[in-house]
Amino acid sequence: MRIRGPIIQGQILETALLNIVNFQTLIATKAARICAATRGEPVLEFGLRRAQGVDGALAASRAAYIGGCAATSNLLAGRLFGMPVKGTHAHSWIMSFDDELEAFRAYAKAMPNNCVFLVDTYDTLEGVRKAVEGGKWLRSQGHEMVGIRLDSGDLAYLSIEARKILDEAGFTKALMVASNDLDEQTIVSLRDQGAAISVWGVGTRLVTACDQPAMGGVYKLTAVREPGRAWKYRIKLSEQAIKISNPGIQQVRRFQQDGQFIGDLIYDVDRGISEDFSIVDPLDTTRRKQIPRDAKADDLLAPVFRQGNQVYPSPSIHRMREHTQSQLAAFHAGIKRFLNPHEYPVALEPGLLELKTKLVMQARGMK
Amino acid sequence: MRIRGPIIQGQILETALLNIVNFQTLIATKAARICAATRGEPVLEFGLRRAQGVDGALAASRAAYIGGCAATSNLLAGRLFGMPVKGTHAHSWIMSFDDELEAFRAYAKAMPNNCVFLVDTYDTLEGVRKAVEGGKWLRSQGHEMVGIRLDSGDLAYLSIEARKILDEAGFTKALMVASNDLDEQTIVSLRDQGAAISVWGVGTRLVTACDQPAMGGVYKLTAVREPGRAWKYRIKLSEQAIKISNPGIQQVRRFQQDGQFIGDLIYDVDRGISEDFSIVDPLDTTRRKQIPRDAKADDLLAPVFRQGNQVYPSPSIHRMREHTQSQLAAFHAGIKRFLNPHEYPVALEPGLLELKTKLVMQARGMK
Repeated sequence: MRIRGPIIQGQILETALLNIVNFQTLIATKAARICAATRGEPVLEFGLRRAQGVDGALAASRAAYIGGCAATSNLLAGRLFGMPVKGTHAHSWIMSFDDELEAFRAYAKAMPNNCVFLVDTYDTLEGVRKAVEGGKWLRSQGHEMVGIRLDSGDLAYLSIEARKILDEAGFTKALMVASNDLDEQTIVSLRDQGAAISVWGVGTRLVTACDQPAMGGVYKLTAVREPGRAWKYRIKLSEQAIKISNPGIQQVRRFQQDGQFIGDLIYDVDRGISEDFSIVDPLDTTRRKQIPRDAKADDLLAPVFRQGNQVYPSPSIHRMREHTQSQLAAFHAGIKRFLNPHEYPVALEPGLLELKTKLVMQARGMK
Repeated sequence: MRIRGPIIQGQILETALLNIVNFQTLIATKAARICAATRGEPVLEFGLRRAQGVDGALAASRAAYIGGCAATSNLLAGRLFGMPVKGTHAHSWIMSFDDELEAFRAYAKAMPNNCVFLVDTYDTLEGVRKAVEGGKWLRSQGHEMVGIRLDSGDLAYLSIEARKILDEAGFTKALMVASNDLDEQTIVSLRDQGAAISVWGVGTRLVTACDQPAMGGVYKLTAVREPGRAWKYRIKLSEQAIKISNPGIQQVRRFQQDGQFIGDLIYDVDRGISEDFSIVDPLDTTRRKQIPRDAKADDLLAPVFRQGNQVYPSPSIHRMREHTQSQLAAFHAGIKRFLNPHEYPVALEPGLLELKTKLVMQARGMK
């Protein structure tokens, strides 16, 4: 993101932008990881009760959908953003009746075309058998139950046993929704165990990005100028190399070849890109990646506001989701794996790197 | 918390209450841990840019203050809740000037009575020396600099060296504010190393409760009745003993002796507390704690709304903070330590435990 304007305006935007961009990028990324783990099976976002307030939950639902989730249980998010909403009844629905089957029948009557029975209030497999009774009653009324939901216990074992019960009773198309502190790791493990789960409900660990609950995006001053004068490039130093800021009026160019992204280059728009550049690993400058001359190149930053007017119409949330999916598909699988992923090449344009080095040396009082 | 009312009303409250109570309890707890680590030195909450939206950030600031923080950098939280606000200038303030000392002087002119210089934009100890220049200029104007802030690098080493520079220049009372991904563990380590830090700025890891970013509070139906009929107690089963719900119309009684809390008892208000009860470890029923007859006892739940009217006036945020501090002080240190803490005794009243066991056995079809 690049902001150009009077310094007080840029300063006022800082905290709001960091809050919005850091959190929603974090959650969209977590959602993408979880959706990668289910290999195309739908993921429902169930996080409202563990998010930070109404705002936090709405932002999480929105970002989770953009990252790949199929729907949210947050009705307000559905209404505000036009996202699909999905959910089931609560355990308390069952507990408010004297009998589990009676509760299922009452639910089936109320929701004949959208009936997912939550089966684990008492004994899960007994609950599945009662759901079958509920399903049979629905069928006799000319409707079909959508599926069942497991929310506790050994989801691998229970889903396999529940699948048998459903199939033997002729409910081979009934979906199996599973939830209970899931994340990408537990989903991979459940799939490895052959769990018969077809829809994944993910809440707490998605909306808190549980294993890494903050993204450390920053907002840095990269150049200043007085009216009518030339830009003065700026850096912030740090003992940690990764925390030294990059100077300049920056743009990011993404290169692709054969439909696959091969590297990003951060360059200064006034200086441009040198003829024979390569992408240099900033942590090991002997590692370099040559970009073929025929590589396709796209600049990632586009103007959104100019002189206070919005010049880039906001795409629909569905379009954003599609864009995310197509971008993710163009990254090599090795970058997206969970264990020891390959690092995607991102580098400074060589002339900009040279300028940065010079500024760092100057600021440190060296030549 | 206990809700009694028509089931649809109770149901509508569920998600909002879980969202509010889970998140704010989590953050107040995290704040209390961080404040315990500083041993009374003030903690400033700096989390706005890493929280979930405006709501999440406000809730986090409020909870952090109640948990023991001294102030927030969130101006809106200060205005809405009447909390103290504190902060410093940004790195971009320094970077917008050609010279660090010039930036400090301009800041000193603008904020002569509230001047904390952020010294790590370029070279930290060089920055401290320039802050000393700024402080001398302030003194010549009849003001005193409040202190300096370190936001990167080896905080133990830098704070000790910076302290020497300040003291030698006659600024022995200048505060040393430190920040940079701090939490209770890094604070304990810095204090162990003799870091000369007097005020702790904590952001990301506080407002995300980084190492455990969700509290798993739940909301369970414990009893139902039809109009004019007796209560029917309810349980939800689970394969995990800790997830089996407790039945009844519950109240919690907290016992104390010699000013120290010795245990909590969950009891049913209709059944009361049996004569010779003890507090039984639910995971090892042979471990029991006798409560002395002369122990002081307080019921923790008080009515807040009755028939839709608020009957309990909300205390001021300062009163809540004091209450939290006095409650925390009454828990044994062993419960509050970070490494292998002792578990505070919480148990079901024996008659209620017996009833619960009976209901579980019944629901499992056993005698």
